[in-house]
Amino acid sequence: MLIATPQSMHFAEPLALTSGASIRAYDLSFETYGRLNADRSNAVLVCHALNASHHVAGVYEGQAKSEGWWDSMIGPGKPLDTDRFFVIGINNLGSCFGSTGPMHPNPDRADGQVYGADFPVVTVEDWVKAQALLLDRLGIETLAAVMGGSLGGMQALGWTLQYPDRLRHAVVIASAPNLTAENIAFNEVARRAIVTDPDFHGGNFYQHSVVPKRGLRIARMIGHITYLSDDVMNEKFGRQLRSAVAGANEGATESAPGRPKLASTPSGGSATHEVASVGAYLYSTQEVEFQIESYLRYQGDKFADYFDANTYLLITRALDYFDPALAHGGSLTKALSAAKAKFLLVSFATDWRFAPARSREIVKALLDNQREVSYAEIDAPHGHDAFLLDDARYHGVVRAYFNNVAQEVGV
Amino acid sequence: MLIATPQSMHFAEPLALTSGASIRAYDLSFETYGRLNADRSNAVLVCHALNASHHVAGVYEGQAKSEGWWDSMIGPGKPLDTDRFFVIGINNLGSCFGSTGPMHPNPDRADGQVYGADFPVVTVEDWVKAQALLLDRLGIETLAAVMGGSLGGMQALGWTLQYPDRLRHAVVIASAPNLTAENIAFNEVARRAIVTDPDFHGGNFYQHSVVPKRGLRIARMIGHITYLSDDVMNEKFGRQLRSAVAGANEGATESAPGRPKLASTPSGGSATHEVASVGAYLYSTQEVEFQIESYLRYQGDKFADYFDANTYLLITRALDYFDPALAHGGSLTKALSAAKAKFLLVSFATDWRFAPARSREIVKALLDNQREVSYAEIDAPHGHDAFLLDDARYHGVVRAYFNNVAQEVGV
Repeated sequence: MLIATPQSMHFAEPLALTSGASIRAYDLSFETYGRLNADRSNAVLVCHALNASHHVAGVYEGQAKSEGWWDSMIGPGKPLDTDRFFVIGINNLGSCFGSTGPMHPNPDRADGQVYGADFPVVTVEDWVKAQALLLDRLGIETLAAVMGGSLGGMQALGWTLQYPDRLRHAVVIASAPNLTAENIAFNEVARRAIVTDPDFHGGNFYQHSVVPKRGLRIARMIGHITYLSDDVMNEKFGRQLRSAVAGANEGATESAPGRPKLASTPSGGSATHEVASVGAYLYSTQEVEFQIESYLRYQGDKFADYFDANTYLLITRALDYFDPALAHGGSLTKALSAAKAKFLLVSFATDWRFAPARSREIVKALLDNQREVSYAEIDAPHGHDAFLLDDARYHGVVRAYFNNVAQEVGV
Repeated sequence: MLIATPQSMHFAEPLALTSGASIRAYDLSFETYGRLNADRSNAVLVCHALNASHHVAGVYEGQAKSEGWWDSMIGPGKPLDTDRFFVIGINNLGSCFGSTGPMHPNPDRADGQVYGADFPVVTVEDWVKAQALLLDRLGIETLAAVMGGSLGGMQALGWTLQYPDRLRHAVVIASAPNLTAENIAFNEVARRAIVTDPDFHGGNFYQHSVVPKRGLRIARMIGHITYLSDDVMNEKFGRQLRSAVAGANEGATESAPGRPKLASTPSGGSATHEVASVGAYLYSTQEVEFQIESYLRYQGDKFADYFDANTYLLITRALDYFDPALAHGGSLTKALSAAKAKFLLVSFATDWRFAPARSREIVKALLDNQREVSYAEIDAPHGHDAFLLDDARYHGVVRAYFNNVAQEVGV
């Protein structure tokens, strides 16, 4: 088993941000797996998406269930093989998992208060810049590859534009050249839920010793709906009543205690078309009635317990803002002309949040520029979540691609 | 111009509900358009969806912009022609537009307080039952048709099962035989936003002289996203910055006053791939940045000003519960064997909330029972909202169908 060891690097130089603001000094949390080879050619940077961190792979010594968020993909003998590659996970600025973020003391304040709502808005470009500075410190000039899914894929794409000479390959999974109006809309509703929670206190809830959990729960519930496909939701939950699938989430849900557990099986043999015979419903607007409700409430509760509200705002905004074509009159082809890397793009047929058509836009713009591109569209049923799951065809594609990268860099 | 006159009918007899509860006495608000013919054969009941009412068509005398919610469809010379048909719109129980609902005094309370959270859960079946009782009072035994879109379509379908001998035709538009897990999930998030708003006070906010507006806003924003198609959102809003489309919603949005209005046009000619040149963003997590955000906030605000929170819970729950196949071991075919009406079903290609596949399930189940069914799938870009909009192909289909109904009933 791969043992992961979190590390941290301090940067005393200010970081100038896209917005015009800057961060005076900051720390970046990171982990590395595998060994950097002698000619420093086998490093692969893995970028994280919304709620993940630098803990990409492996487990923490003596900590059960501490697998990294992409442990199925990265490790010894896995598609991104840490026996061959030196893999680096970096926690992004503004996050709540170690790198400097809203929960850390604001050096511009004499009273030692945390940043809170004053943490500056960060962009994908800012993250990429900070990642590059960390790589400088690690003595890595050129990456074999940068890899990421969703928002992580945007960072991989960003790398090819900001530091075209510092990476050989970009692996961009379940991503997009920018968010659609619908995606921005979902982000906005989630942000409004957080910001209008009275416990948010304009982002300075830390001083009030509260957390805007209501808003965070709603944000996460919305997120979860959009990460799954309609199909997989129907398959996993359908219209099953909560009591029908007792067990797993039972203790964790908010369902009222002491309620009788009613069978969800329709009345079957004796069924008539009379309305009164569908009696398995509780007829309540607030109690958990359907299994999908129980699942969403559980996910919302869990998230609200560990995720920082200001981080949620910052990261969804970074998603909204990413749009390399914007500075090129809307032409993605012009924007991507700066890229020199070779590309692997992967999308998933049922992903309606980052639909295959969005990946194809990137593929087309790269081909317009005569770049080398491999593209796989995987017919997985799991929606956007598929990029985190273990699918043989998907992992096969990534494995084959990294085999070629390994040969190219001689490992 | 058709002038509408709201009416109300009192019912002193208790109404037994599907849940086992009952409503002691109640009023139903309704409107009628056109004239009932001598043999009482030309009555058409129009059922409303989530946030609509009995005010289906026409305008109120001397009230500007008071068009009924389906005025494009119903009126003199319109697809459902009030020169030929006697059209009835009824506000459903539990609503907040006139019929007895959570905002009305609870007769079971000595203190004269309103129902609030104690208003019993009502189902599509209960609404249909109450509608039938009103028709009894109006002296209408058999309807030429029942028509509705979305949740209104579920009521039309419900009519064919509960009172198969009391209607000749059912016009079921943009509807479904039940909600999918994803649909229930969206309803649940909206309900949680309302219920966890501190101003909800367990549903008894009226006594506290507050309204859970935060929750209602979030609920409506979620709703709006799901009523539109991804395509139409991209076409209407895309990634346009708020300041780019000044005008229409300007005064109504929550945007911070005094903020400079920045042009959204990308820097164009002088554009390079350098990050710093995309400077039209405000770089804020809370201010309106994109036009879609402004639109959603405006819709949320408007809704929170007029819609009752308890009604929202009740109506979304009625949507969740509707499932005629449940009492038949999940067989829609068995469930619909009770129906005797002829059917027109209409769906819209880009409606992902009530997708065409769901209408086709109904069509198939009716055909399995050798019922007469017409089905039209309209390639409109507007998503679920399309059923309320004026589309020539859609209106042509409905017009043609009602021409046949008119001949059948001799008007």
